[in-house]
Amino acid sequence: MDLWFTEDHTDYVKFSMKVKEQLFSGKSQYQKIDIIDTYEFGRVLVIDGYLMVTEKDEFIYHEMITHVAMAVNPDIKKVLVIGGGDGGTVRELTRYKSIEEIHLVEIDGLVVDASKKYLDFTSNKLDDKRVTLYIEDGIKFVKDKKAVYDLVIVDSTDPIGPGEGLFTTKFYKDCYRSLTDKGILINQNESPYYADTAEQMIKATNKLKKVFPIVEVFQCHLPTYASGHWILGFSSKAYHPTKDFDGQRWKQIGLETNYYNTNIHIGSFALPTYVNKMLE
Amino acid sequence: MDLWFTEDHTDYVKFSMKVKEQLFSGKSQYQKIDIIDTYEFGRVLVIDGYLMVTEKDEFIYHEMITHVAMAVNPDIKKVLVIGGGDGGTVRELTRYKSIEEIHLVEIDGLVVDASKKYLDFTSNKLDDKRVTLYIEDGIKFVKDKKAVYDLVIVDSTDPIGPGEGLFTTKFYKDCYRSLTDKGILINQNESPYYADTAEQMIKATNKLKKVFPIVEVFQCHLPTYASGHWILGFSSKAYHPTKDFDGQRWKQIGLETNYYNTNIHIGSFALPTYVNKMLE
Repeated sequence: MDLWFTEDHTDYVKFSMKVKEQLFSGKSQYQKIDIIDTYEFGRVLVIDGYLMVTEKDEFIYHEMITHVAMAVNPDIKKVLVIGGGDGGTVRELTRYKSIEEIHLVEIDGLVVDASKKYLDFTSNKLDDKRVTLYIEDGIKFVKDKKAVYDLVIVDSTDPIGPGEGLFTTKFYKDCYRSLTDKGILINQNESPYYADTAEQMIKATNKLKKVFPIVEVFQCHLPTYASGHWILGFSSKAYHPTKDFDGQRWKQIGLETNYYNTNIHIGSFALPTYVNKMLE
Repeated sequence: MDLWFTEDHTDYVKFSMKVKEQLFSGKSQYQKIDIIDTYEFGRVLVIDGYLMVTEKDEFIYHEMITHVAMAVNPDIKKVLVIGGGDGGTVRELTRYKSIEEIHLVEIDGLVVDASKKYLDFTSNKLDDKRVTLYIEDGIKFVKDKKAVYDLVIVDSTDPIGPGEGLFTTKFYKDCYRSLTDKGILINQNESPYYADTAEQMIKATNKLKKVFPIVEVFQCHLPTYASGHWILGFSSKAYHPTKDFDGQRWKQIGLETNYYNTNIHIGSFALPTYVNKMLE
């Protein structure tokens, strides 16, 4: 039998990958979770039919969602990750000896359980001593936090279903308040290429600009996400992502990476003109 | 009837787009040429089953294959384009008043004819007075040229079929000889993401390094090419693509672009670590 998983990128565009076997299929109160093993991309996490993580290129997303902020402010000690139950963002964070505490707030315990069982490549640092896992709604979790975190990473699904509330001005204000005075917020910010995600990118960025004094977006080449052109947001109380960036200082930490480097740090903020126009 | 065009990105990955109608289908002595109208990407040129040009995002490829070189050396007067029978690269070149002569050498007259009829958005400058069209084999065309061109652009298909000879050391040496002493060669250089194209990218770059003193590669976000992460090569006799780049000078030319800008010029040469490692 030929087994294929197909994701609809739009109503008119499909992306399909050949499947070796389905490893897991489960339904939580929030969403449907599937894990498949594929020929091209290795193991793949799919939530409500949308591709979330692949073994082949998760390093691109997880390095970029983590190291850009860490390189701008290597003094970050306390980090909140909202979403990201697969553990990939936490894995990258634990590589910094300077980080003292990581709170991972994932609404859906089944994502964590399935990732621990089938996605060891992302979940293998969830038992790091500095990590505390909260199976809770990130929106509620952040409501009563004040000047606690140096970095908040919103590693969310798309703004449909449980991810929707993570794209609101109210939530961004709560994140702002939860941050210390040099705090940085990084958010999964969709793609500029297809109309639907472009609209989400624009809306989220405009909301963030109302809340934070410094808001920039940066991009990565992430082939398994729709269009392969993916945007992350960098919102900040004090530090500018490129002007306050000291590449030499980050290099001295001595981390080996596979996508991120100090040149691409700068380069990732150089956006195509059509994206700049969308965000003007 | 639901009509879909599917391109195989690898044996295990497919990319499909919904088709409004097939506008043209023809076969030359070299290849099969199809033009379809699609819901998401507008008109699309397909050669031997592989997507070449889409109305939605051809600007990304054609701007990057043209403006990077033109911005490094605005004194370019005489240009050779090999391949590129759709006319998109020529269209971008004709925007520079400073260019005096453009030779377009396309092996397959049917590509030009079909593009003129159905792809006005790329072919609309093929009748510019400065353009001379040669329906000839680019490999042969360049053999007896010596210090003629300031810029050669190899706007080729993949290195299979008629494009194969455009990825050889012999051909690169002929291009080198055809260039003036400040000459630049830009080539379509495949993608680093999937194994097959990554191997082609590495081989082509290594060959170019044997011929040119300065060889760098740069990237663009081109969603309709496999992986969306596409590489172009910049090989040069004298000018370095970033160290000898004067962004202000290019801005003074006053061209409006939709992807290229002077920030992305620099940023496009900042490669992911895994790509740098491939090219070491």
